[in-house]
Amino acid sequence: MKARVHITLKSGVLDPQGKAIAQALGNLGFGDVHGVRQGKYIELELADTDREAAAERVESMCQKLLANTVIENYRIDLDD
Amino acid sequence: MKARVHITLKSGVLDPQGKAIAQALGNLGFGDVHGVRQGKYIELELADTDREAAAERVESMCQKLLANTVIENYRIDLDD
Repeated sequence: MKARVHITLKSGVLDPQGKAIAQALGNLGFGDVHGVRQGKYIELELADTDREAAAERVESMCQKLLANTVIENYRIDLDD
Repeated sequence: MKARVHITLKSGVLDPQGKAIAQALGNLGFGDVHGVRQGKYIELELADTDREAAAERVESMCQKLLANTVIENYRIDLDD
């Protein structure tokens, strides 16, 4: 089973990488970009075949390692 | 209009970040994770209202700045 995890900064948390991208895009002539936020995208290949068990395990991985829940949100999508 | 860009390493390209995550997950007791690939996820807020024009501009941004097309693939999703 494949899990796709999106990790994004919570709104209100400063995103210097996003700001740098926005500025670089402006310099390249893409001035109409109002906001850029950069996050992480992680693909996990799991041995689990049970969907519920897999969801629970990936949730636990996010809490313990993948995301810093003080400043980041995460979203988990599971593919069969 | 909002654009969501996923940037992932092409298959075959070494992903040391992914390997480090897989190892850390193993140390935390998540031994059943077979493979981890880490990519980037970028959200862009665009002034464009025309979907086709926006898609073209974001495609151009990916080619010029956001992705290294030698080693990375990108996928663009547009929300209204």
